[in-house]
Order: sequence, then structure tokens, then C-alpha cells
Amino acid sequence: MNASTITVAQSNAFVATFELSPTGSGLLDGLCFAVKDLIDVAGWKTGCGNPSWRDSHPPAVANAVCVEQLLQAGARCVGKTVSDELAFSLLGQNHFYGTPLNPQAPDRVPGGSSSGSASAVACGLVDFALGTDTGGSMRVPASNCGIWGMRPSHGFISVAGVNPLAPTFDTVGILTQSVEVLTRVMTVLLACAPASAQEPSAIYLIPEAFALADAEVRQALTKSVQRLRDCFGERVRESSLRDLAGDETGASFSTWRDTFCAIQWAEIRSCLGAWIADAKPAFGSAIAANFELTNQLDCRRIAETTERREQYYRCLHSFLGPHDVLCMPTTPALAPHKGAAPPRTAGGSGYYPRALGLTSVAGIGRLPQVSLPVACAAGAPVGLSLLARSGQDTFLLDVARRLA
Amino acid sequence: MNASTITVAQSNAFVATFELSPTGSGLLDGLCFAVKDLIDVAGWKTGCGNPSWRDSHPPAVANAVCVEQLLQAGARCVGKTVSDELAFSLLGQNHFYGTPLNPQAPDRVPGGSSSGSASAVACGLVDFALGTDTGGSMRVPASNCGIWGMRPSHGFISVAGVNPLAPTFDTVGILTQSVEVLTRVMTVLLACAPASAQEPSAIYLIPEAFALADAEVRQALTKSVQRLRDCFGERVRESSLRDLAGDETGASFSTWRDTFCAIQWAEIRSCLGAWIADAKPAFGSAIAANFELTNQLDCRRIAETTERREQYYRCLHSFLGPHDVLCMPTTPALAPHKGAAPPRTAGGSGYYPRALGLTSVAGIGRLPQVSLPVACAAGAPVGLSLLARSGQDTFLLDVARRLA
Repeated sequence: MNASTITVAQSNAFVATFELSPTGSGLLDGLCFAVKDLIDVAGWKTGCGNPSWRDSHPPAVANAVCVEQLLQAGARCVGKTVSDELAFSLLGQNHFYGTPLNPQAPDRVPGGSSSGSASAVACGLVDFALGTDTGGSMRVPASNCGIWGMRPSHGFISVAGVNPLAPTFDTVGILTQSVEVLTRVMTVLLACAPASAQEPSAIYLIPEAFALADAEVRQALTKSVQRLRDCFGERVRESSLRDLAGDETGASFSTWRDTFCAIQWAEIRSCLGAWIADAKPAFGSAIAANFELTNQLDCRRIAETTERREQYYRCLHSFLGPHDVLCMPTTPALAPHKGAAPPRTAGGSGYYPRALGLTSVAGIGRLPQVSLPVACAAGAPVGLSLLARSGQDTFLLDVARRLA
Repeated sequence: MNASTITVAQSNAFVATFELSPTGSGLLDGLCFAVKDLIDVAGWKTGCGNPSWRDSHPPAVANAVCVEQLLQAGARCVGKTVSDELAFSLLGQNHFYGTPLNPQAPDRVPGGSSSGSASAVACGLVDFALGTDTGGSMRVPASNCGIWGMRPSHGFISVAGVNPLAPTFDTVGILTQSVEVLTRVMTVLLACAPASAQEPSAIYLIPEAFALADAEVRQALTKSVQRLRDCFGERVRESSLRDLAGDETGASFSTWRDTFCAIQWAEIRSCLGAWIADAKPAFGSAIAANFELTNQLDCRRIAETTERREQYYRCLHSFLGPHDVLCMPTTPALAPHKGAAPPRTAGGSGYYPRALGLTSVAGIGRLPQVSLPVACAAGAPVGLSLLARSGQDTFLLDVARRLA
């Protein structure tokens, strides 16, 4: 589909449209943006993609801090976008609000949970959109929709006014078609000076991550990996997953995924369990199944899992120098076809477990990650991801821009 | 008062007592703890020190992740403790639940908002207690009550199941009478190996912080500072506040405090504003005045303030080596007398502005901070604080233990 002709209604990306003028002027003058409906805009209900949530909560009285930062830097806000229910899905099919359009692959899901934000950007309806990412909710839709998506280092962009899912993984970030816009917006949100052009010391391809991906994804990314080698020569190397984790337990993505999921599920129960038990909300069946999983978590696993998480974090932090980069596919497969969405519990080789394996590295490592829209396979977009040490967000953006 | 003879009723520290058995065995076998009533314990309402909040929210269905970690490491939980309303105060006088006893200075406030947790520990009713600290809510009560208190590096202990106040500053930590217990509990919560005995490279006294404190506080801390010099010799130096901030704006604690408060107030409005506008809760007058302050925030200040915050953070992170320590008084004055609590808006020389000036350094720098119960003046306890680089929590604990 030709993005330039898609209307708001055709995109099905929005839950509300409006005009909110900038409150200041600066780096973002002239740009317009949309806000995932998990993030507060004063006067509007934050619906979190679920009507029961919307109806049982009052309108926000203040903008989330990130919205405030963008308005003050000169951007105007034009609406709120569909989220997967309570942000707990990577698919982008909302039982109540439908499936936002993936304009580059209309028969495929946009990915979630920042589905409407990704769709609004990919359809050319906004210059950029705010999303959230706990376990892949910006990176996966960015890859599926053929746009840029950035998950920042954990803790560096305010999550105040953003509905929590799993606080030690929750982040706010940006989806956009332009790496220049991405850089400007992230500069505002991270409140940091733009990176000086700093040469990367090493760019580590993670062979297990490429091996985890379908052949068509690997094939589609070949040219981009070659471009990395052309740009950075011998500094492009390989590093095994085991070396990133520091011990044998980390040699398989399944351990990273299980570590991430145990903590995520425990945090989701803490954040949302009481409301769910009390309000007995209606959920779409896929989301109900996801929440049911959190009830099956054996809490006795939390202690050892937390220890493993911190061990992997520390090992990643000492493995990665300040100017090192990791590289892997953003997702292991093309966006699933609409309606044929894979079940969450499809075993280790299914879509979900493999996708979470890849996304869990940034979650556990608190690392910034950018998904670059670099390739296509079978007419569907494929993203390549670069990751850097926690806190090195502007350096990472600079490297990503050089590959654009 | 003799702590060993104080009863639960006399302490007025608890909102509920119960027995929750350990779910595992480990470092904390045999220890009992209490939980600030801002933190979820499954089956109990999380009241946040305010009856309107309690009555409008369902019971928690899951333990906060931190509670789960402690139970699994062998500790048993014996109750929930009084919090200042929604954690938005440093005083410890709750209009609805009264003032928990400060056993070492019964005519003075315990400090807040982790008032009940500090009181329960100081009264000898538990081995340690969970508290939270956004702008001083563990450090101030620790100093007032003559006990150990630790605010960890931001983002390293799960806040899942903990009611948010200002998420980019919120932390979970520990109050206790024993540095050995503190070390064991923090090892469990931080899920890290105990620090190897690492010599500090430098311990920087911050002269502006000592100058900000009342003469009796400075005087009371003289011996402890001398002990620092005895222990660490010429590695004890001075560093001006300006050097920590990297520029002239940071030469005064008032800028640090204003930077902290602007972001804290914006985040408080984001987190609690909608509920307050909707539920119209009853507040004690001091707390109502605090919330009213957040409504007066000029949102146009957020952008520049966020930039200043990140600038100070980056400067602190590069100033402090991995084995450097900062040293300052925990609070600028003795605990205020009960009933004569100072108003929040008493100008720059008042208790509140000075206290927030000192506490904002760890908040802005994401630094871990330990308050050591080292001194007394006029019969009231006085704490000394050590701070380290973000992420260096176990190193900091090790240095603190050597001074105990």
C-alpha cells in the first residue's frame, strides 16, 4: 500500500485524534507525534487497550513527563494510538480495537504492543510516535512495519505517567521512519548532548541469534551485515552468547528468555494482579491466556532468577566497552499473518519463545537497542538490531545513523 | 526509652501484624522483618498511609518482588508499618495513624515517610524493615531514629508491587540496627555476590553539605569524620559541590533541590494526580499542602530541569571512580520536635529545603547512600552518610561496615 494515501480511519492506528499545540520551541519544531494509549495525556483517559481499564480509571490530570518534554521541544501531539491490552503482547491484534494496519505487509500483523504507534508512523500519519517496550513492544513492531524503533537504556527516560507492566524492564521510546528524527527526539527525551562522532571499538555479531532466526530472515539480513563489514572492517567480529553471559547457563537463548519471563511475570502480577482480581475485566482470549501464564509462575523461582539476571547484567556490562556494539536480528521471523497468530505456549521453536529470546538480552542487560529497517523478505520488512552498553544511547544512535 | 521493653502497641509503628513464614532458606534464616504499607503483601490491602487509598483499592494478590526475595531467603514477615500518606513527607506524623515512636528521642518525630519501618526497627520489634526512598524517606528516618538505612542505586532492586510516587527516583531499601543484617539483606535484594574487601580510592567530604547543617549536627559528626581520617588517611579529601555538578549552577544545594523537586512534582502529578482528582481523598493538612505544591509546578520548567538533572548525573558518574565515596551529614538538623513540625515552604534556610538539598544528590545521581548511626546531639541521634557511584552498592556497604 502507498503510505501517502492512507487515512487515519484506514490505518486503524488511533483510539483518539486531537490537536495539542507545542508549549515551547526547539529541536522538534514542526514535527507531529502520536502517543501510545498506555501513556498519559492530560484530560484524556489512558485506556491501555482495554475497555474495562478505560472505564474504571479517571482521565489523566497531567501529561506524562515524556509527553511534556516533547511538547516543550516544539512538537505537536495529534492523537493516542491503539495498544495491545495492558501492553502484554507482541502481536498487535486487539480484540476490542482491531488490528492496526501494517502498510508494508497488509496481510501481516503490525506487532505489538506499540501496534498503533508503529502503524501511525508506517502509514505516514505522524513524524514519530511514543511507544513503550518491556519485552520487545517497540522493537518487534518496528521490525514488522519497516521503521526505526529505539528502546533506550532502562531508567534514563521518565516512565512517570506511563502505566507500568513490569517496572524493572519498562521503557519509553520512539518509533519513526527517519533516523534524523529519531536522533532529535531521543536527544530531547534523554536530555543529553548529541553524541560526538565516536568510532566504535568493536561490533559483535551474535551467531546464536542469527542461527535462531528463520533462513529467510538470515538471508534478508546478509547485505546489511556485509555493509557493517564494509563500514567497520575488522572491528566487526563474532561473540558467542555464552561469552556475554559469562557462563554455560547463558549459552542458550532459552535461559535468557526464561530468566526474563519469570521476573516479568512476577512483576506483572504485582502491578496488575490486584486490579484483575478485583475488576474481573474482559480480555481478548490471547491476552487472557498471557495473564493466565503469570498465575502459573512458581514464585520459588524468583530468588535464583533474580540472581541470574544480575549476573548476566554485570557480565554484559563488563564485556561491553563504552564504544562496543552488539548486532542481531530484531525478530526471529517475519511478522505472522493476521488471524493465524502463533500461540504463546508453542514450545521453544515457536515464534513467541524465539522472539522473547532475542529481545530479552536488552531487558536483562538494561541495554539500549535500535531496530533498523534494512531489509525485506517475501514482501515483508525485516529489522536488524544494534545494542550498546547501558547508558551509551547517543553513541548507539550515532553508529546506527552511519548505517542508514 | 529502653527499646527492649517497647510493645507493638506502644511503638505505634504497625498498621497490621501477622506471621508470614519463610518460603525458603538461606542468608536470612531466623530473621524477622516488617514491610512499609506502600509495598504489597499478598492478601493485604496496601494502604499507603491514607484511608481513602486503602478503601478504594483491592487487596494485593501477589507479594511485591522484594518481599518474595526476602521470604525465599529465609526471613519471616511479621507486619506492615505506618507510612506517611502516599509517601510524600519526610516527617513521620500521620494524621490518621498517628506518629510512630522514635524510642531514642520520644519527643521528636521519627522522620518519614518510612516512619513505621524505622520505628519498628529502632524499638527492637523486628530485625529489619523494608522501606522506600524517593527523596529521603529511608535516609531521614534512619538518621532521626539512630539506625542504619540504605537507599540503593536506582533501578537495581525491583519496585514491582510498590506504589509509585516519582518513578525515576523511587527505590526500595532497608532499615536495621545492624550493619551485618544490612549487608545480608542487601545481598539478597541486590542479588549480587558480597563485595570483596576493596580499598576505597578516595573519600570526599563535601564542605557545603557540612556547612548547610546546624552547628550541633556538625559538632556531633566531628568524631566520625576523624575516624574516617584515622581509617583511610590521606585518601580522605574534600570536594566542592561545584565539582560534582560540573558547573557553577551546581555550586549551591538550592539548585540541586529545585532540580529534584521540579521533576519529583511532575512525576507525582503523573502518578497520583488522576486518582486525587477523581477520588477527592481526605488528607492531613500537611500532606494536602504538599500535594498542592505539585499543582503549582510550572510545567515549562521540565525540559531545562531534565537536562540539568542528566548533566549532573553524567558529571557525578565521571567524577566518581568505581571505588570513590562521598561523605555528608544525612540531615541538616536534629529530628524536629513532635507537633512543631516545620512547614514545607519555609524558605531556603528551613528544615525541609535544606534536608531535600542533601538528599537530592543521591536522587539526581542515581547513587547508593548509606546512613550510619554514629552520633548524638541534645539526646537525639545524628546520622552520617556515605555515597558511592551508581551500581557500587556492595562496595559502599563494605566501606560502611569498616566504619561501624
